[in-house]
Amino acid sequence: MTHSQMILGMQLGNGYGSQPAAWRAPGVDPSNYTDFDAQVRYAQAAERGKFAFLFLPDFLALSGNLDHEAPQLTLEPMLTLAAIARGTQRIGLVATGSTTFNEPYNLARQFKALDVMSHGRAGWNAVTTSDPASAANFGRQIAARPQRYQRAHETIQIAQALWGSWQPDAWLKDAAAGRFADPGKIQPINLGGEHVASQGPLPIPPSEQGQPVIFSAGGGDYGLELAGRYASAVIGAVFTIEDARAQREAIRDAARRAGRNPEEVKFFAGVMPAIGPTKRAALDRRVALGEQTFPARVPYLGSMLGLDLEVAQLDRPLSPAQLAAVRPSPFDPRSPRALEVAREGWTIREVLAHGVIDYHPTPVGPASVTADHLQEWFEAGAADGFWVSIDVYEDGIDTFVDEVVPLLQERGLFHLDYEGPTLRENLGAPAQYGLDPRLTDPAR
Amino acid sequence: MTHSQMILGMQLGNGYGSQPAAWRAPGVDPSNYTDFDAQVRYAQAAERGKFAFLFLPDFLALSGNLDHEAPQLTLEPMLTLAAIARGTQRIGLVATGSTTFNEPYNLARQFKALDVMSHGRAGWNAVTTSDPASAANFGRQIAARPQRYQRAHETIQIAQALWGSWQPDAWLKDAAAGRFADPGKIQPINLGGEHVASQGPLPIPPSEQGQPVIFSAGGGDYGLELAGRYASAVIGAVFTIEDARAQREAIRDAARRAGRNPEEVKFFAGVMPAIGPTKRAALDRRVALGEQTFPARVPYLGSMLGLDLEVAQLDRPLSPAQLAAVRPSPFDPRSPRALEVAREGWTIREVLAHGVIDYHPTPVGPASVTADHLQEWFEAGAADGFWVSIDVYEDGIDTFVDEVVPLLQERGLFHLDYEGPTLRENLGAPAQYGLDPRLTDPAR
Repeated sequence: MTHSQMILGMQLGNGYGSQPAAWRAPGVDPSNYTDFDAQVRYAQAAERGKFAFLFLPDFLALSGNLDHEAPQLTLEPMLTLAAIARGTQRIGLVATGSTTFNEPYNLARQFKALDVMSHGRAGWNAVTTSDPASAANFGRQIAARPQRYQRAHETIQIAQALWGSWQPDAWLKDAAAGRFADPGKIQPINLGGEHVASQGPLPIPPSEQGQPVIFSAGGGDYGLELAGRYASAVIGAVFTIEDARAQREAIRDAARRAGRNPEEVKFFAGVMPAIGPTKRAALDRRVALGEQTFPARVPYLGSMLGLDLEVAQLDRPLSPAQLAAVRPSPFDPRSPRALEVAREGWTIREVLAHGVIDYHPTPVGPASVTADHLQEWFEAGAADGFWVSIDVYEDGIDTFVDEVVPLLQERGLFHLDYEGPTLRENLGAPAQYGLDPRLTDPAR
Repeated sequence: MTHSQMILGMQLGNGYGSQPAAWRAPGVDPSNYTDFDAQVRYAQAAERGKFAFLFLPDFLALSGNLDHEAPQLTLEPMLTLAAIARGTQRIGLVATGSTTFNEPYNLARQFKALDVMSHGRAGWNAVTTSDPASAANFGRQIAARPQRYQRAHETIQIAQALWGSWQPDAWLKDAAAGRFADPGKIQPINLGGEHVASQGPLPIPPSEQGQPVIFSAGGGDYGLELAGRYASAVIGAVFTIEDARAQREAIRDAARRAGRNPEEVKFFAGVMPAIGPTKRAALDRRVALGEQTFPARVPYLGSMLGLDLEVAQLDRPLSPAQLAAVRPSPFDPRSPRALEVAREGWTIREVLAHGVIDYHPTPVGPASVTADHLQEWFEAGAADGFWVSIDVYEDGIDTFVDEVVPLLQERGLFHLDYEGPTLRENLGAPAQYGLDPRLTDPAR
């Protein structure tokens, strides 16, 4: 079963956009990496388009080829979202926070403070960290997966328990009677596991949505179990409808196993639209954005197609002999799409401009191509919604909002306005305050 | 030697004010504990008064008598300051951050992000945490003082090294040439100690002041050594001019021992002004604010005076027999002041309204009384400046700004405008980027 309308989130990263050369695109200020005004402006543009949430990935180390490319992340997700909370009214604010290299008390406090500051719009994408460079920033080694996930379970449960440590009616604010709060309704949690522990209570009363919403982005059996237990939204990485349907079903099954209604967990597929007045214009936009990165990607495209491709061929299509020799790699789910595009006769550069090596599917052409893509996936039960990676924020968010969103609305696929002021309402996530009692109920 | 003009900072806490009953004072919205608009408004009022910085204490546990009193702290200092950074232009933003229960990478990243967001106005009050309830929120025990301070040294040094991990000219932003940064100028730090370690680099280029300013608030020999090495400002807790002069000299000596010029470390004495058109009006304001707390303080006031005082005497002064029997306690530096006030014939309630058991001296009366207090202390070499605790923010900040600040300015004791846009400029703190080379120079 699918919902009647899709939900949209927008990835927000480095101040420029998701394409590596966004920082030097026309009209973009190359200083935006440190400009919080720009982040707030982008968030406002997304809010104009009724996006349910902004999704901020995070990573605890500096990575990427800084010579030619900007880091893909905001300077720091919590402070970025605090700035955005002050400049927006409705859009949800979801930050990635590592359960591996943060203490639950600190995580719980900052996310709850963001939730209160934003009047109930915060979400926490609770991830584990397996990157050795990140571990080195904390003077540690990466633990084995079972230990990392054990710590993640403990951290999420402690954070949620801390969030519930003020009963909803504990804060009296009764000035006349001189009663600030009912201390009997603000209680320690005294939760501890093998890795982390906390006594509580947290010094923060409930927000308008009670407490932040849990997002999940992990894969594999451990990730599925985590998402099935706690997540209201899963940020997926999928390249085909079949792939997405399978992942969505797996997550819904995991939710069922945890005693939850699978409708409580929304699955979001990624999409990286390339939009222009014509297909040629959309492709040219991506060709320009890929100028510095495409040459280095030629060999990998070759490996996806089972060919030895050389940079010298960038501006020529595959030859008949090459087309006859292709063997799409079974190790990359994007290979069939790459072959499909190559067979249309585009040059290697243009094949790459179709986003065939990008992280998510790239509909290329007028806004209707992106709208069709979203509709097809949504109606096929591949996703409850999408997280949209905009190539260049400066103009790309407005293009999506002005051209794609109205098409989806006309087709009845997307809401005309926010359902309410909280992220929980706009996600359709059920009320939750404190730990989910279904997870701890011994009667289950 | 003193500077020609004093520097003022303002303590910012729970949204109400530093007096326990501020949350229910007339004109105060009892919901302000969770209202970030209120915090921003207070910060703007302080900025109008040319305060050099806001100082946010912090504590990693919920404490206090919540039945009658609000917690004394903001919900979370970093997010509060992020909101304030977006609503102000010049005032410095100093948050307390525990070196005991945070990782240096996380601290360094958040403070540097705040510094960039505020265009060079961030400061970090680097403290150790010795409170068992806070330790319990992290599932830990409190380590012995030498270990706590060892970790503090390591944490500060690693944070400062991370702050310097982009050379000032590393960020090229050369869109025409397609060069984002010079990776050769963004280097790991690979620093590790007994307690914490980090590889770096941090993903954040320099701010307008390079990096955040270090504040210190610790006492004792360990605290002095820490302040002497790293701090540009010390938040003191002193009750008399003699006390303050001694503390200030001790800190300046500690700076000299660390190879620094003592002028680099500014000492701030606390003050909690009680301001009204007349002394009687100022006192009445405090009497009203103390209504719920004074009865419980009577026995302690008695112990300061060597008397068995009872609540029944609240509205009577000390009797001649009591005055003849007083023995000021040598264990509380506030005892002589309490006796001085009691001898003036005030009732016990009024003695308490003089702030004799508060954390800092309380000048009581028209604005000139506070201005005189600040002038006397400043000219006696007791402080380079003051951190001001306002009783009720809603009207108290404006009163201070409109009445005390002009007096200080007329007397030539306080600047007419900010020296510049950064905290470093407004503190008179020297430039620093990365670790202070004087601390690591083997030639010393």
